[in-house]
Amino acid sequence: MAFQKRIDAYGVHVGSMPRGKLNKITDVPGVRVGHCTVDTARHRTGVTVILPTPGNIFARKLVAASNVLNGFGKTLGLMQVDELGVLETPIALTNTLGVGRVHDALVQYTLDRCHAEGLFPTSINPVVCECHDGGLNDIAERVIGYDEVMAAIESASEDFDEGDVGGGKGMICHGFKGGIGSASRLIELESETFTLGVLVMSNHGRMADFMIDGARVGAEIAKRREAREAAEKGSIIMIVGTDLPVSDRQLRRVLRRAGVGLARLGGYIGHGSGEVMVGFTTANGYAHEGSAAILTQRILREPKLDLAFRAVAECCEEAVLNSMICADAVTGYDGARFAPALRAEWGMLNT
Amino acid sequence: MAFQKRIDAYGVHVGSMPRGKLNKITDVPGVRVGHCTVDTARHRTGVTVILPTPGNIFARKLVAASNVLNGFGKTLGLMQVDELGVLETPIALTNTLGVGRVHDALVQYTLDRCHAEGLFPTSINPVVCECHDGGLNDIAERVIGYDEVMAAIESASEDFDEGDVGGGKGMICHGFKGGIGSASRLIELESETFTLGVLVMSNHGRMADFMIDGARVGAEIAKRREAREAAEKGSIIMIVGTDLPVSDRQLRRVLRRAGVGLARLGGYIGHGSGEVMVGFTTANGYAHEGSAAILTQRILREPKLDLAFRAVAECCEEAVLNSMICADAVTGYDGARFAPALRAEWGMLNT
Amino acid sequence: MAFQKRIDAYGVHVGSMPRGKLNKITDVPGVRVGHCTVDTARHRTGVTVILPTPGNIFARKLVAASNVLNGFGKTLGLMQVDELGVLETPIALTNTLGVGRVHDALVQYTLDRCHAEGLFPTSINPVVCECHDGGLNDIAERVIGYDEVMAAIESASEDFDEGDVGGGKGMICHGFKGGIGSASRLIELESETFTLGVLVMSNHGRMADFMIDGARVGAEIAKRREAREAAEKGSIIMIVGTDLPVSDRQLRRVLRRAGVGLARLGGYIGHGSGEVMVGFTTANGYAHEGSAAILTQRILREPKLDLAFRAVAECCEEAVLNSMICADAVTGYDGARFAPALRAEWGMLNT
Amino acid sequence: MAFQKRIDAYGVHVGSMPRGKLNKITDVPGVRVGHCTVDTARHRTGVTVILPTPGNIFARKLVAASNVLNGFGKTLGLMQVDELGVLETPIALTNTLGVGRVHDALVQYTLDRCHAEGLFPTSINPVVCECHDGGLNDIAERVIGYDEVMAAIESASEDFDEGDVGGGKGMICHGFKGGIGSASRLIELESETFTLGVLVMSNHGRMADFMIDGARVGAEIAKRREAREAAEKGSIIMIVGTDLPVSDRQLRRVLRRAGVGLARLGGYIGHGSGEVMVGFTTANGYAHEGSAAILTQRILREPKLDLAFRAVAECCEEAVLNSMICADAVTGYDGARFAPALRAEWGMLNT
Repeated sequence: MAFQKRIDAYGVHVGSMPRGKLNKITDVPGVRVGHCTVDTARHRTGVTVILPTPGNIFARKLVAASNVLNGFGKTLGLMQVDELGVLETPIALTNTLGVGRVHDALVQYTLDRCHAEGLFPTSINPVVCECHDGGLNDIAERVIGYDEVMAAIESASEDFDEGDVGGGKGMICHGFKGGIGSASRLIELESETFTLGVLVMSNHGRMADFMIDGARVGAEIAKRREAREAAEKGSIIMIVGTDLPVSDRQLRRVLRRAGVGLARLGGYIGHGSGEVMVGFTTANGYAHEGSAAILTQRILREPKLDLAFRAVAECCEEAVLNSMICADAVTGYDGARFAPALRAEWGMLNT
Repeated sequence: MAFQKRIDAYGVHVGSMPRGKLNKITDVPGVRVGHCTVDTARHRTGVTVILPTPGNIFARKLVAASNVLNGFGKTLGLMQVDELGVLETPIALTNTLGVGRVHDALVQYTLDRCHAEGLFPTSINPVVCECHDGGLNDIAERVIGYDEVMAAIESASEDFDEGDVGGGKGMICHGFKGGIGSASRLIELESETFTLGVLVMSNHGRMADFMIDGARVGAEIAKRREAREAAEKGSIIMIVGTDLPVSDRQLRRVLRRAGVGLARLGGYIGHGSGEVMVGFTTANGYAHEGSAAILTQRILREPKLDLAFRAVAECCEEAVLNSMICADAVTGYDGARFAPALRAEWGMLNT
Repeated sequence: MAFQKRIDAYGVHVGSMPRGKLNKITDVPGVRVGHCTVDTARHRTGVTVILPTPGNIFARKLVAASNVLNGFGKTLGLMQVDELGVLETPIALTNTLGVGRVHDALVQYTLDRCHAEGLFPTSINPVVCECHDGGLNDIAERVIGYDEVMAAIESASEDFDEGDVGGGKGMICHGFKGGIGSASRLIELESETFTLGVLVMSNHGRMADFMIDGARVGAEIAKRREAREAAEKGSIIMIVGTDLPVSDRQLRRVLRRAGVGLARLGGYIGHGSGEVMVGFTTANGYAHEGSAAILTQRILREPKLDLAFRAVAECCEEAVLNSMICADAVTGYDGARFAPALRAEWGMLNT
Repeated sequence: MAFQKRIDAYGVHVGSMPRGKLNKITDVPGVRVGHCTVDTARHRTGVTVILPTPGNIFARKLVAASNVLNGFGKTLGLMQVDELGVLETPIALTNTLGVGRVHDALVQYTLDRCHAEGLFPTSINPVVCECHDGGLNDIAERVIGYDEVMAAIESASEDFDEGDVGGGKGMICHGFKGGIGSASRLIELESETFTLGVLVMSNHGRMADFMIDGARVGAEIAKRREAREAAEKGSIIMIVGTDLPVSDRQLRRVLRRAGVGLARLGGYIGHGSGEVMVGFTTANGYAHEGSAAILTQRILREPKLDLAFRAVAECCEEAVLNSMICADAVTGYDGARFAPALRAEWGMLNT
């Protein structure tokens, strides 16, 4: 598989921190990402799955947190994440009306995986996030089910495609084709190297507001295209993975900084749809069944979080740019709507 | 249909406020409740649906709020309720692993209902609540789907059964058979009469802790039965409906008092599962499509909420008692577990 | 000093868990409590201080959390407690209009204590809680300042008085004289014994609603006294201290159960004033200045919290009863209002 | 009084929305702002007061909300604002250790003002915000008290100074002298013109990160100055006033977008101190004493909030720039620290 050139290759270098090997969320050891894309006459949609650990995450749950910047959205599973501070399934990203079926698919996946290991759970909390792809996809027909979720899980790998793939197939970002993007940063602490990575599903923003590194790229293109634009629909999902030793409270503090990256690209966090962040750390996990009453966890001395705050802001900005620059143009299911590729339009601008 | 005798008929009179005609949530004008119960060899489960208005609630959304006392649960849809302060679908109550399929069913129901009215929504936020009925029901097989949800909706009426019906079929409360229960109270303000009603799906508490009006009924029965008991699993869903003119913030304040009723029955809000409250008022609603930029809503002068606070506490206490006293004993799907009927055991105690 | 008889001595035994030696929050090793009471012609007020550790808590901060059940109140300092999950000053309890001056006093105390140790802090977050004693005390004259706070701190000890003392001097609870009360419970885990203690400043509830162990004591007394009663003013402060190894999130879960005890005494959490819980654990602390980037903390396996949940509910119920039964009757500063002693009225009822 | 040139006069035009007459928060009809600055040998500090209405705000409270992006701070009064959704005193901005004394001053001011009108409140909730000026000011000596607060209130006017004045006297922003800044935007709805204004007290950010309209101004100046910089201290207070008809929930949604402006200037919301937003609308208010049980309020149709979201982001970005460009250089009380004026340094860069 040949991956698309990423924003760095276009001379846009976001931030100052060192990157991981792939510059993706999968630089966090153990994390993998898989897609299943549905691209048919009426459907431009799909599902993307983040697998936080190679093992059975239900059997060994990971410390996790969420942050909701704009709750106009249908993300499922955050109530329990917030209460217990742990994640117990992979995280799936899909379209707005598809979350129920994908939730059910993750229940079945978790049951099967657990049964194979002699565990028989009767209570499972899948986390399913969504953006609205109804501009390009016939969203009322819910075509993502168990088979698609399993295909995404089975295809999961460290390196993975970005742009108009998986859950990102039908997404539009700042008036251009958006979708899945990722980035990562390295953090040195006491001679250990930790990684923080972000994966976004981008579906927000107006073209006229879009900036790259301070340059008002979107306004120029919008002017040239004479495009008329609706109100900002601010939907974006930001998944943050790390191996930093943090508590759920500390992780939530990290998530709250994810919005910084969006603002730098010109987003105003419009009313129209949700900005939701979900994070996990592979550094702290708890066995589903265990006998010890008292557990030990490693956390960061609070001021050290500053490095993670900077990392998450840099990652989010770069991940959104990657989601756009890697995406091909997509025509909607009824032909009425067209999402242009950033790299085509921006290239035209540069020449 | 002959309804079971309710707790009032046993001489237990909760609180001092006047009751509505049926003493159920459906005393709030326009509210209806329907059940679909699945009672087969392996399944003791079902779904209960609260329809807050006779009209299409998606087309005219109602002011709503939620409150989470214990977020160890899988209730879906609260993020958007909290952000926008409105409810746009009926509320469904079912078992823990069934929420995804029931979510999908409410999406389909809303699409169908809207299409019939010339509305074509592409973003819908179903609210689906759950308790864990895995003690009596083979919960891993998810048998509640579109047909069952539609059956519950179509059977909805003002008077409705309580106890081991609908979503409450497999629930256990304080060691006795629990399930669906309801109660209502009337509030006079400026010579208008308003109603506040509660519907619970009860699945929490230990037998040894159970009290009725201060009497330690549960401890006595537990002693006689020599029952050994596991840790409290505190799961209960409390749905609050009213026609009081309140804002979403005021409604959330009301919901926070719902826990008072539980405590009076001996509950400690155990770790094991969620206490979730969802509320709506039929007094304030907004059209999905509208042209006016500025809307008007009526709210209560804040100190007047005291009446609603008292009402919700009284209703919750009585609704849980009704959910128990109306329920028949149920034997679990594998015959290993048995949930006794409160009225049988308590009767034995009284004679 | 001879302490008043406590509720246990009247034959009211709350709950089933074992008590600490003093049955007070000071059973948690290291915790001390001090009062300064102002009882003059116009003033029935004071300040109570909880010192969580013998050492300088600013230099070694303790893991802490808060929970707000009714935010109609003026408690200061919770924003930072919630963000950072630590407490860095003693906790002071006083009257509503006095919180600013008491805050300033705790700043001075912390500066002095730190300067003596060679620490020079420029940012300090005092936690000051309050209830409204304006019924008995001329609250507009703010008579609690640095001297009174220092007097309370200097008088701090393991055993301490309850009832109409310190910050509780002017408080009224369920129509009777309330104020300061405390209780504790022991928790065995892996052959270690941990303690959870509660200190309340009680100022809530209506007489007609007051129950002791399910008996409607308040309604009977109210009837006899032909007292007319205003709306419930629900103000109560609940301070929870423990040496259980818990995280800030786990501590918040414990605090959420504190309301259970109030409900059992007949409270409805009225609109009128705040229900605020603040908790700390001496088991997890962090040096203000430290070089290690990564710290270790011990936490509980989540289901083990059930013991703490039950303990906090029992402690709150008993602490409120102690705050009432230990209090003498107090006449207000203008003679217009009188808060009767529970033990006088209840005694009359029993004979 | 001659005001300093503002950022607009330097050719930096933030955003696209129309500005109010003064381009300050006082463009919202009825709002006034006053300062008291303390500039002595050891003190560079002060207090700034926002008066939301000409009348007694305690007697007619305004709908209000808060949002905490980083709760590492000592802002007082937000708990009640969040619970009841109203503001009942002016808002004061001062230094970190001074909040207690300023709180007490606002209590006295409110008592006096109410007594003069025949109101006798015994419960008052002042809102006092702070940033840490300990770099330039001897913060441990708390020199802001009743006289300074009254001086600020009495000097309040529609036009007011920006930069190193009032509470902003000792603040440092992105390594330059910061302090008080303001901006406003106009919003047309149904042929009415509404105003949204912001006042900031800026004290956050690193010089190396500072950007103006996408240009990395800070990095260049930092390089030239060879300045060594500590970790970001992210403290900033953002006060949002408007006459838009919004509910407290809607206002909170507006406040959540205020962070967008900070991110565009290069801020990362560092660990070091608090980002706190407080907002009020003059369009919805409630009498402290009233007899009507049911009140009416006007709110916005939800999608119309997009205009307010954009306005608040533009205002915050411009207000921070105004706080910096209007400030003179200030030398700290021990001479050890110096905060340069942006206009001097930036000017040097441009020539």
